Amino acid sequence: MNINEIKIGDKVSVSKTLTQTDVYMFAGISGDLNPAHVNTVAAKEGIFGKPVVHGVLTAGLISNAIGMHLPGPGTIYMSQTLNFKKPVFFDDTVTATVEVIEIIKEKFVKLSTICTNQDGEIVIEGEAMVLPPK
Amino acid sequence: MNINEIKIGDKVSVSKTLTQTDVYMFAGISGDLNPAHVNTVAAKEGIFGKPVVHGVLTAGLISNAIGMHLPGPGTIYMSQTLNFKKPVFFDDTVTATVEVIEIIKEKFVKLSTICTNQDGEIVIEGEAMVLPPK
Repeated sequence: MNINEIKIGDKVSVSKTLTQTDVYMFAGISGDLNPAHVNTVAAKEGIFGKPVVHGVLTAGLISNAIGMHLPGPGTIYMSQTLNFKKPVFFDDTVTATVEVIEIIKEKFVKLSTICTNQDGEIVIEGEAMVLPPK
Repeated sequence: MNINEIKIGDKVSVSKTLTQTDVYMFAGISGDLNPAHVNTVAAKEGIFGKPVVHGVLTAGLISNAIGMHLPGPGTIYMSQTLNFKKPVFFDDTVTATVEVIEIIKEKFVKLSTICTNQDGEIVIEGEAMVLPPK
């Protein structure tokens, strides 16, 4: 959608269960083989007691919500802030919700970007700035 | 490495060629099938003239540098800012460089996080805050 179709308060959510498969594929893509993600034995002795999903992988759901829905195809992604609030574990179902919070100079759109788990706990909070399609 | 082993100016880089395979796997993981990434025909008519790599996928190399090297395994990733400065195209070779810029309360480490392409152009700039292992 273009800038004229977007108003403050517009909101979209996407959900996905993030599995071991996702984590292992992302480890290969990113080269991030941190034992916190791909070593069950080491992760058991870590602070969370079991392997966790890469934070940046979870942020992929925000990219999904922005790139597919709000503003959707043609959007230029300018910036993203990510505050990792809680761990995401294998098989957690994460919902990314993006909401328009500001329209700047009738050109740029600022979105609040929140990811929650199946218990409603916030796992990522942050904001994105995007340039919607012409 | 723990907080006592870390000093301002410590720096690590990791590099990877980001391919079509990476983009298509990440599209499946994230559900972000934005035509800018996975539709060659539509992307040809878009602003960049060809498909681009998901910005969040490129940010995976920062996660790699932090999680694998500086501070490395055991690190808690607290936050990340990402400013997407230029597009990354299929087969671009991206280098993520993380550098310690501040140590806060002898506990938290702030890193500058920069990704460059094979021509030395900055594609992502931002900062991360992490809690190194005890």
